[in-house]
Amino acid sequence: MAPKWTVGRGRSGATTTRWLLVLVCVCVCACGCVCRASSQTQHQHQEEEEEDSANENIVTEKKAEESHRQDSADLLIFIMLLTLTILTIWLFKHRRFRFLHETGLAMIYGLLMGVVLRYGIHVPRDISNATLSCHLNATPATLLINSKGKFYEYTLKGEIGANEVNDVQDNEMLRKVTFDPEVFFNILLPPIIFHAGYSLKRRHFFRNMGSILAYAFLGTVISCFVIGLLMYGCVMLMKKMGQLGGDFFFTDCLFFGAIVSATDPVTVLAIFNELQVDVDLYALLFGESVLNDAVALVLSSSIVAYQPEGDNSHTFEVMALLKSFGMFLGIFSGSFALGVATGVVTALVTKFTKLRDFQLLETALFFLMSWSTFLLAEACGFTGVVAVLFCGITQAHYTFNNLSPESQDRTKQLFELLNFLAENFIFSYMGLTLFTFQSHVFNPMFIVGAFVAVFLGRAANIYPLSFLLNLGRRNKIRSNFQHMMMFAGLRGAMTFALSIRDTATYARQMMFSTTLLVVFFTVWFCGGGTTQMLSCQRIRVGVDSDQDNSVSIGEGSERRTTKHESAWLFRLWYNFDHNYLKPILTHSGPPLTATLPPCCAPLARLLTSPQALENECQIKDDDDDSDLILTDGDINLNYGDVAVSTDATGACSQDDPDRELACGDQELVMRGTRLVLPMDDSEPPFTDPRF
Amino acid sequence: MAPKWTVGRGRSGATTTRWLLVLVCVCVCACGCVCRASSQTQHQHQEEEEEDSANENIVTEKKAEESHRQDSADLLIFIMLLTLTILTIWLFKHRRFRFLHETGLAMIYGLLMGVVLRYGIHVPRDISNATLSCHLNATPATLLINSKGKFYEYTLKGEIGANEVNDVQDNEMLRKVTFDPEVFFNILLPPIIFHAGYSLKRRHFFRNMGSILAYAFLGTVISCFVIGLLMYGCVMLMKKMGQLGGDFFFTDCLFFGAIVSATDPVTVLAIFNELQVDVDLYALLFGESVLNDAVALVLSSSIVAYQPEGDNSHTFEVMALLKSFGMFLGIFSGSFALGVATGVVTALVTKFTKLRDFQLLETALFFLMSWSTFLLAEACGFTGVVAVLFCGITQAHYTFNNLSPESQDRTKQLFELLNFLAENFIFSYMGLTLFTFQSHVFNPMFIVGAFVAVFLGRAANIYPLSFLLNLGRRNKIRSNFQHMMMFAGLRGAMTFALSIRDTATYARQMMFSTTLLVVFFTVWFCGGGTTQMLSCQRIRVGVDSDQDNSVSIGEGSERRTTKHESAWLFRLWYNFDHNYLKPILTHSGPPLTATLPPCCAPLARLLTSPQALENECQIKDDDDDSDLILTDGDINLNYGDVAVSTDATGACSQDDPDRELACGDQELVMRGTRLVLPMDDSEPPFTDPRF
Repeated sequence: MAPKWTVGRGRSGATTTRWLLVLVCVCVCACGCVCRASSQTQHQHQEEEEEDSANENIVTEKKAEESHRQDSADLLIFIMLLTLTILTIWLFKHRRFRFLHETGLAMIYGLLMGVVLRYGIHVPRDISNATLSCHLNATPATLLINSKGKFYEYTLKGEIGANEVNDVQDNEMLRKVTFDPEVFFNILLPPIIFHAGYSLKRRHFFRNMGSILAYAFLGTVISCFVIGLLMYGCVMLMKKMGQLGGDFFFTDCLFFGAIVSATDPVTVLAIFNELQVDVDLYALLFGESVLNDAVALVLSSSIVAYQPEGDNSHTFEVMALLKSFGMFLGIFSGSFALGVATGVVTALVTKFTKLRDFQLLETALFFLMSWSTFLLAEACGFTGVVAVLFCGITQAHYTFNNLSPESQDRTKQLFELLNFLAENFIFSYMGLTLFTFQSHVFNPMFIVGAFVAVFLGRAANIYPLSFLLNLGRRNKIRSNFQHMMMFAGLRGAMTFALSIRDTATYARQMMFSTTLLVVFFTVWFCGGGTTQMLSCQRIRVGVDSDQDNSVSIGEGSERRTTKHESAWLFRLWYNFDHNYLKPILTHSGPPLTATLPPCCAPLARLLTSPQALENECQIKDDDDDSDLILTDGDINLNYGDVAVSTDATGACSQDDPDRELACGDQELVMRGTRLVLPMDDSEPPFTDPRF
Repeated sequence: MAPKWTVGRGRSGATTTRWLLVLVCVCVCACGCVCRASSQTQHQHQEEEEEDSANENIVTEKKAEESHRQDSADLLIFIMLLTLTILTIWLFKHRRFRFLHETGLAMIYGLLMGVVLRYGIHVPRDISNATLSCHLNATPATLLINSKGKFYEYTLKGEIGANEVNDVQDNEMLRKVTFDPEVFFNILLPPIIFHAGYSLKRRHFFRNMGSILAYAFLGTVISCFVIGLLMYGCVMLMKKMGQLGGDFFFTDCLFFGAIVSATDPVTVLAIFNELQVDVDLYALLFGESVLNDAVALVLSSSIVAYQPEGDNSHTFEVMALLKSFGMFLGIFSGSFALGVATGVVTALVTKFTKLRDFQLLETALFFLMSWSTFLLAEACGFTGVVAVLFCGITQAHYTFNNLSPESQDRTKQLFELLNFLAENFIFSYMGLTLFTFQSHVFNPMFIVGAFVAVFLGRAANIYPLSFLLNLGRRNKIRSNFQHMMMFAGLRGAMTFALSIRDTATYARQMMFSTTLLVVFFTVWFCGGGTTQMLSCQRIRVGVDSDQDNSVSIGEGSERRTTKHESAWLFRLWYNFDHNYLKPILTHSGPPLTATLPPCCAPLARLLTSPQALENECQIKDDDDDSDLILTDGDINLNYGDVAVSTDATGACSQDDPDRELACGDQELVMRGTRLVLPMDDSEPPFTDPRF
């Protein structure tokens, strides 16, 4: 229907903008009204309540109703903010503004709403809702209150600082808008992280696996300790100058190092995707950012768990350190194992049942199994978010191939939507919380120190590691790539969620306030400057399909030798995966009867699906996504063409280094046609050229 | 890929069943282990806690962690139950067992798990977690507890009966598995109801609108009062015989009548859909069940709100009755208006922006706007579930036409999935709660009375109303249809959610227990007997596309005159909708410049999209889903063919009675080709004939 619009194009552009402006106004007004109305009804109802104090039962019911109404209104504020963000970001995309990503915009709207809530709305202090104090000797999870012969049940929400007691009574409105930090870990982060894992499957990720693991594991640990040490120096200086208003231990500094080491270059990756930047750079950045979230999360909890025995709990002690280190390994490997295990179970179930005939059931099963990973890990005391990440990677690598094409689309789209909503929710909440959080501690010296430390920490991660990796890599990480990776060290959702998780002590409050500023700065400044940085570093963009020698912006990069670029680690993994794991878990790959030793023949026959056996017979059958490799270059190229059409629907390309080895110099052409990046199917790289 | 399977068919069937059995065992074991493990770790941790009682802070943290771990484990039980349900139901569909629907199966698994939790797992009573009592004069929403100089925050959860106080301390495990009833209204029901509204759009719904409204509004009220009166008689009898253990007022009886008047024939509709039963019967049943949920919900809250002044709050008083009636009207119309308003706003936004270029943004906006209806209604004191229903209908009727085809699929599939998950969750919870709910009151006399009353109430709804409607309908509701509607009066999610919402008093507890039995019986017995009932009543099935005169089971039904079957109400509505609403809210319909009087020309030009204007010029353009009616029969038939391909992707058919009037006897053929039922695209009507 596109041609139809050409008639009213000019007018419709103006109309659209006008309508959008009206909508923005309506939304903002509505938000304000909602806040005001809900606070007013609350007050009004309380007056009513005082009249008929005889009927205690109704009062309690009304209170619960009122609280629910208030909750709805609070959530509505965020829904409206997100709606506004969507409309505005559409306008930006429509007009091709690339300097502001939706997450940055969500933060801005959050900030505005925070200002309105903080200064625009005055909620009268209400006596009847004021909290009472009760002296007890213990703090059970459930408390029974006997009031005039009736029993009421209370649940423990948490400890609050002595200085906040007055705030609790004072500012109900702002407190209401503040979510329980665990919401981030239990509801918002899992879909984001799972989606990251689920889109991580690509040949380029596995080809750069060694480097990615080095950046994510070694790099994050280096960054954490560099930042921790620098901050400790800064804190010592502050203490000398009398600028410190509370305790700040070395473990706190390390904790800060861990939380700000989780990078989240979602803005940068979106632009990379749109401009079709070099796939290796994309894979390095994306892979690193996905994995280092997991590392930073486990690292921070290990640091918190560092508890030397005895009274002085902040001295150095080898045993406690070893315990922390063991905990890091235990939690990480446990979560990893759990995540992979659920992924494998899902792959087996989808392989050996014919659920694919019923797409709804298939999608539901996929969703439930992925969610159960999270719950299982949490119930076992591991880290759900980490488990979900590895579950996502496993699902993408194996289960995805067993799903029906409809379910492949459905699951992709479902998690894409959940990711989008959760991410923008977190970022708008981030903006909001700058004004609504009640115990900010902004210390200029700490903030400056943190910015310097974050910069140096990132540098200490990227440059030395790149140097070391380049010693072993055939396909070197060039210096402009290194600068770009340095620049793309944005902080985002994970950093925020980790820093807001615990804001009980002075140190944590200062960290939280500083972290917020770090996130704001990196998202707006680094995110906004990505296109400038790309052209400044002369990084090749527009690595387009079919026509690799098309005119691109970055002229400086030359063709690299792609032959034998795969590292030994990758080769080892690839062979095992291709010969054993893929045939066991999916319908693709060579039949197990061919790869397993003869002694395992019965088992092999049991596990090999009829499809795999048939694939062996009729090798040209390309309706199934098996690895049709190990044949001559002609078939490969044919298959490559088929892969393009699959990619358009968000499906996955094959991982087959053998073919690359065989094709040699054709690889660069091939790579263009096979490039599949996340969100590929949702956002056309360029908007309609007529506007 | 289907042909490939023919080789290993027999073997793969056996393998599948074997694998499934293994999986079921694994799941059940895992569920048990999860429960046991989580209860054990809880105990073990408590022992640890006692050792280092010095460190209060850590203890509190550990408690919160423990509670979170337990929550995860509890939720995991349900996820596993749902997974199991999905696998089993797949096997049933695969083998074409129609006697058990997934909801019935979910209940069975829930029951089994309930038995395991109740009798299989013994959680030792732990002292340290026991609740304390504290005497206060008021019950604020937030409570501060001062324990050893530290402040802890508690939130009010609700009142509990004096006899439950010991239970609270006793059976933590069972209490944990019990969800807050508001979860149903705030999280699980909204997607179910929205999905119902979103799938309600069909020509056949609007054609039978008068009858549907009569059944849903008048019928539900009749049913409510008939059941209420019968139950009051039953309760009086019980009182005389000394079988009543507590108060049971007339308002309680009416409340019971309201909650069991909400029908939910999801099982029956699934079978209808699969067997392609007569579309009018489908429309009547589906339309009634969707709307009467809303009526029953508002009715029950109006009955609860009936509060005569003075001390004796259970006498009859005209003013209180009028107030209740006014409340019914107010809440219903308010929720209706809000739902329609958000739907209209979404339609306008999607019409006047070109969000359709970015499907992710479009889907996210659609989702957020639909959700905001719920929150807005709740925040304003209306009923969110009712608002969501009408929002869904509006979205389907208008917004859906403005969405891009991808987003049409995405939104359909998203809500289909949410509906599936929420529905099965509720039904499995229903099964579970029969054993885990702590205050069941099973009274044989009340139960028998309730079953009789439910039966008679349904009869008093269907038969008299059908008689009256038949006086006005040209297309009569035949007696076998009436029997089928009587039989299809299943009770489901809404009835359960309403009955579990408040179980504080003796009367409510008895109602809850009885309601559970009513739901179990109707879902298993009536749901399971649907195919038998269909053939027994000789109802035509297999109303298939293209070949209307194909062999069908129900031979008894003859062709009805379809000419002029549309009622005046429908005609009035159709004209208004077609001439004004559709052109304003979507790109289809005649341009407003043609339908509005000349004085409104500037406004009409502003609101008419270029697409609509073009449609007028080139009337044969069928890429857009405008109502291409008012032309001769030839074009209609062509267009009919086009509509079939649209329907296959879950899109909507057109509502155009004029064409039916023009086509006359061809209508029956047409109807076959246009028949679109919900879930059409997800579940192929017949499984692969080769199995």
